Amino acid sequence: MADAKAKPAAKDENKITTRAENYSDWYQEIVYRAGLADNSDVRGCMVIKPNGYAIWEKMQLALDGLFKETGHVNAYFPLFIPKSFFAKEEAMAEGFAKECAVVTHYRLKSDPVHGIVVDPEAKLEEELIVRPTSETIIWHTYRKWIQSWRDLPLLINQWANVVRWEMRTRLFLRTAEFLWQEGHTAHATAAEAEEETLRMVRVYQKFAEEWMAMPVLVGPKSDGQKFPGAVYTLCIEAMMQDGKALQAGTSHFLGQNFAKAFDCTFTNQEGKREHAWATSWGASTRLIGGLIMTHSDDSGLVVPPRLAPVHVVICVLGKNDAERGPATEKANELAVALRAMPRHEFFNYQPMVVRVDTDFAKMPGFRFAEWELKGTPIRVEIGPKDVEKNACVLARRDIPGKEGKQMGIPLSDAPATILALLQTIQDNLFARAKAFRDSNLFEVNTWEEFTTRIERPGFLLAHWDGTRETEDAIAEATKATIRCIPLDLPKEPGACVKTGRPSAGRVVFARSY
Amino acid sequence: MADAKAKPAAKDENKITTRAENYSDWYQEIVYRAGLADNSDVRGCMVIKPNGYAIWEKMQLALDGLFKETGHVNAYFPLFIPKSFFAKEEAMAEGFAKECAVVTHYRLKSDPVHGIVVDPEAKLEEELIVRPTSETIIWHTYRKWIQSWRDLPLLINQWANVVRWEMRTRLFLRTAEFLWQEGHTAHATAAEAEEETLRMVRVYQKFAEEWMAMPVLVGPKSDGQKFPGAVYTLCIEAMMQDGKALQAGTSHFLGQNFAKAFDCTFTNQEGKREHAWATSWGASTRLIGGLIMTHSDDSGLVVPPRLAPVHVVICVLGKNDAERGPATEKANELAVALRAMPRHEFFNYQPMVVRVDTDFAKMPGFRFAEWELKGTPIRVEIGPKDVEKNACVLARRDIPGKEGKQMGIPLSDAPATILALLQTIQDNLFARAKAFRDSNLFEVNTWEEFTTRIERPGFLLAHWDGTRETEDAIAEATKATIRCIPLDLPKEPGACVKTGRPSAGRVVFARSY
Repeated sequence: MADAKAKPAAKDENKITTRAENYSDWYQEIVYRAGLADNSDVRGCMVIKPNGYAIWEKMQLALDGLFKETGHVNAYFPLFIPKSFFAKEEAMAEGFAKECAVVTHYRLKSDPVHGIVVDPEAKLEEELIVRPTSETIIWHTYRKWIQSWRDLPLLINQWANVVRWEMRTRLFLRTAEFLWQEGHTAHATAAEAEEETLRMVRVYQKFAEEWMAMPVLVGPKSDGQKFPGAVYTLCIEAMMQDGKALQAGTSHFLGQNFAKAFDCTFTNQEGKREHAWATSWGASTRLIGGLIMTHSDDSGLVVPPRLAPVHVVICVLGKNDAERGPATEKANELAVALRAMPRHEFFNYQPMVVRVDTDFAKMPGFRFAEWELKGTPIRVEIGPKDVEKNACVLARRDIPGKEGKQMGIPLSDAPATILALLQTIQDNLFARAKAFRDSNLFEVNTWEEFTTRIERPGFLLAHWDGTRETEDAIAEATKATIRCIPLDLPKEPGACVKTGRPSAGRVVFARSY
Repeated sequence: MADAKAKPAAKDENKITTRAENYSDWYQEIVYRAGLADNSDVRGCMVIKPNGYAIWEKMQLALDGLFKETGHVNAYFPLFIPKSFFAKEEAMAEGFAKECAVVTHYRLKSDPVHGIVVDPEAKLEEELIVRPTSETIIWHTYRKWIQSWRDLPLLINQWANVVRWEMRTRLFLRTAEFLWQEGHTAHATAAEAEEETLRMVRVYQKFAEEWMAMPVLVGPKSDGQKFPGAVYTLCIEAMMQDGKALQAGTSHFLGQNFAKAFDCTFTNQEGKREHAWATSWGASTRLIGGLIMTHSDDSGLVVPPRLAPVHVVICVLGKNDAERGPATEKANELAVALRAMPRHEFFNYQPMVVRVDTDFAKMPGFRFAEWELKGTPIRVEIGPKDVEKNACVLARRDIPGKEGKQMGIPLSDAPATILALLQTIQDNLFARAKAFRDSNLFEVNTWEEFTTRIERPGFLLAHWDGTRETEDAIAEATKATIRCIPLDLPKEPGACVKTGRPSAGRVVFARSY
């Protein structure tokens, strides 16, 4: 009988702070205990541990596939950017200059008194900045690559590490160094560049919803929240379980700002020189923070199957060697069958990842709790009674306990049943997250409603007069910012919740990460 | 008739310097003209262009698969390493301290006179080094992760950028910033770590031979050539077409050096504290340089199909719209059929990459030459006569001209024929490179033979007395170094080619990149 009871002692050791007790501790403990990331001894920099990195790899593979489907190719530009490049685009300089790692020397030397010291003889003529984002170096390069309308569009993406000197950091959500992708495209017309800007924010939406099972609102940022150097910024915004917003991807229409700053012109079809039109778009390891806070529960991490580091764990049960031997054999057979299934689009044509757990030194309940903590979507249990029946038990991570269990699944049917169940779990996680998000989306019509409601979790849909002053005043009073002007919600005119002045439609306000 | 003649005018425009004229210019021109990489305006840093990056992506996918098959997982450690970490391992400090990018400040500010300047208020207490390799930060981290023999082995790999301040750079072969992977493993016993060291150099050999179609010699480095901090280094060495050697991957047995430097101990099965045993192993974007110099010819890049950015180009031919229309239709149908073929292990379960070339503004010969320059393994030609016969022509990049052409391949058979031909091309490239390498491997027995033969291309197999002094004297006199002590060649004792002292077996001498 596979349904072994968890011993309370074992349970306690694995227990984490609950969301209700302390949401922030809960997040931190999941990150540590599920082996996702660690703080390093380098200020603000994290170590992404194997389980966390496995999620990132699957995110990369899926996003990269979506980029390639939409005609993009990858390239790689230098880590270092000469200081003078920053001075060329005023908004960039303003937006990023305050938080950069600066390389000033290129050599160390041994000093008899102080050990290893920086060699003062090896000072750079011009300081190099570790890239906080790559628009400047890329547009400096595009200037050489773009001569004629025939060279356009240029649809390039880069996977890279970037550094922004953050004072208050939080694993995945805000770190000094992080991993990301940044797309940088050049176009012959504004219309084409604007189409691209929209296309890519929709790609992020597709990825968030179909892979991360994380529903998002899509729309432009207000001017106060846009990227420095952009004409406008489109974004996807997700609701975390504490009701706060997480910006999970942005796509910028840059107009001709960078082409002008770096003097990048092309000969158009009429034979005239013109500045190229630009977009840039990015998503980062921050998505892992969003994934955790969208699905996880008080037992630990919950990951949608398409991004899970391990899809299935098979826990072998039994009191003694006589029971464990045959159960282990069945478990290994099932593992081989699962790994040998045809490559499936659901897993991005990667093999199903299966582990067999024979850690008999630990109590079954403790082992189950460990796999739950790590977020493995399906736990298979095979004990002596299952061996007798040539069957197994399936337990769902998204529906813990008896409710999510299926007993007596014949081992011959198990691979097909498991594949179908993984797809069901993926769908269920999205449906659940969407129901949560939708039930925490509130229309508010008066300032009093706004200020009361904002103290509770959720997003507010409120009218806004479109001015920066009002946005700032609302942020000052409530700490809520405009997350986006939603593209997909009905638009009806009204009166600004703060000033009463006319509004073209409701926008999304929330407190955010 | 698809076999259109190339116009001399068109041919000339595409012509590159030949290997015989100037090998180094030939290499450089292939890198530029095939769109592989570009110098940047940041000293010593390259831009990897889309075609070059596509090769790197396929290398990554294949290597990563081999690492995972051998039980490894990926993780990510910080870009920055505190200066003091370097002082902890003496050999590391000696080996790398001379060529590092040093971060000293974390902020820029606007200055009314000088524009953007480094903010002197934002000086770091301890300088940060941009990683030249990650042993120090990783072993500092492992100290926290490793407590008991149960935590071992730790089998971790990292894909990352690293920086080594090189004075003389060359695209892919030697650049200040490059991309690589670095494996860092921890083991409970020396024997296990040594097994791992050998396992991983064999993984590099497998990758070089089966994916890059590049034969390699495998073996330990001499002490003079090993990695700083290693007990010994195993490597793979390939022969370029100019007969020089390229070190293409290294695997180091680090003993307990790093565990001792970073005080990383574990409780062994007998309950005693012991320092962990370590390996590290790496391969980089330098491999792309090796790929180019192994296979390419005077018409441009040649890439083995498994790593080709584009596998097949279908060139549509015809004098006018009436001829081009139906040919384009057939070309598009064939492209769809090729892309829809079942995912194949040969391509790492990625789709076949197919382009349809309808650039009728250029002469066919010019178009063919462009695709040859880029190294596309198979060119399909479809012209009006082919349409009539419902057939196509296949041209091989590895055997240019009529000799490599197959005429009248029925379009219905084309997908299967093309897949088989790609596999044939892969095998042919390896066989050709191996024949070249083997015919340029010379046994030399006297110092006169050595000094004469070393002036011509090739590797020398010579006896060596095993001392650093003799190795240095030979290098001084001939610029040849010991590339490796080959594991897979027969070992018979003899007399050192320089000193006449006893030698355990021949070693490989060559001039190298």
